[in-house]
Amino acid sequence: MNGPEIERLIQLLGRLPGLGPRSARRVALHLLKKRETLMQPLGTALGDAARAIRSCSTCGNLDTIDPCSICADPNRDQGLICVVEDVGDLWAMERGKIFRGLYHVLGGSLSALDGIGPDELNIAGLVKRVGAGGIREVIVATNATVDGQTTAHYLAERLGALDVPLTRLAHGVPVGGELDWLDDGTLATAFKARRAL
Amino acid sequence: MNGPEIERLIQLLGRLPGLGPRSARRVALHLLKKRETLMQPLGTALGDAARAIRSCSTCGNLDTIDPCSICADPNRDQGLICVVEDVGDLWAMERGKIFRGLYHVLGGSLSALDGIGPDELNIAGLVKRVGAGGIREVIVATNATVDGQTTAHYLAERLGALDVPLTRLAHGVPVGGELDWLDDGTLATAFKARRAL
Repeated sequence: MNGPEIERLIQLLGRLPGLGPRSARRVALHLLKKRETLMQPLGTALGDAARAIRSCSTCGNLDTIDPCSICADPNRDQGLICVVEDVGDLWAMERGKIFRGLYHVLGGSLSALDGIGPDELNIAGLVKRVGAGGIREVIVATNATVDGQTTAHYLAERLGALDVPLTRLAHGVPVGGELDWLDDGTLATAFKARRAL
Repeated sequence: MNGPEIERLIQLLGRLPGLGPRSARRVALHLLKKRETLMQPLGTALGDAARAIRSCSTCGNLDTIDPCSICADPNRDQGLICVVEDVGDLWAMERGKIFRGLYHVLGGSLSALDGIGPDELNIAGLVKRVGAGGIREVIVATNATVDGQTTAHYLAERLGALDVPLTRLAHGVPVGGELDWLDDGTLATAFKARRAL
């Protein structure tokens, strides 16, 4: 009924995370009403980004240049590597401006259930980077999920022989969090890791 | 930190209905990971649709041709016009395959609060179409909201002199609806409009 262009647009929009068929139609309609101000610019932005963005061959970050602007930045501490599962985690760290070293994006976490083994992740690249020397510390910032923890343990095993200090993010009560709402695991971990006040 | 292409993409995605800054980032990341299979095709589809789609000069529907494929379809009853607020409402009617006549899209509803008067809507076009003759019935299918009802009453006034039967959609209990969950207004309307079993 809508012509193939609209049908194809709705079908593609429905493949975005968080959009079902109904919200895809809603988004499509919104776009069609703002053809000049939103639809054309978004189409161009998508094309531009798809063409320009590539994975950094060193760390796996997404950027227009390779090595990425973080790896190429001489003001960042080249002796620290923070290992994250995903580019989204890297973005979160950068938003917080908490870390001024380099990153290494694994591209996921080990998962027996999803059939993701060490070869599916960018682990060999990390071992090579750390093995090349000059690294003072590797901070393993995988998620605090079962898969993330498994990945962290596997990394500790693989990097253990290289004699570089490995650390991981602290577990505990999130800032602003209320004890009453915390799960038992977090509470127990926070209690065990208590520090002098 | 991401290069201007990604920032611009996130900013544009955040303007889509139902997407906030956080989900816009999530969608952008998902797209960046599927550059070949989703991002490029979506960019092309957006550009294609933005270029190809126009408003039908007769009914206000969005289509690649003008008059639109509904107005141009000789198999549809040219004597019936169903008046809807929005193209999304037209899509809903077409999905249900409940109507085989023509449409007229007003482009919204009268709203004192939003400052939308008759001149902001495609009402003059409707009066002209109906006035041109050959119309056996005008079905007013505006929303059952205050604004939609106001619009329906206004249309009845404007079209009253033209001696064409005007009808509106029935109000009542939605199919599958439970009385306990219905608002009083719907229940009262359904009771008043009760029919022989």
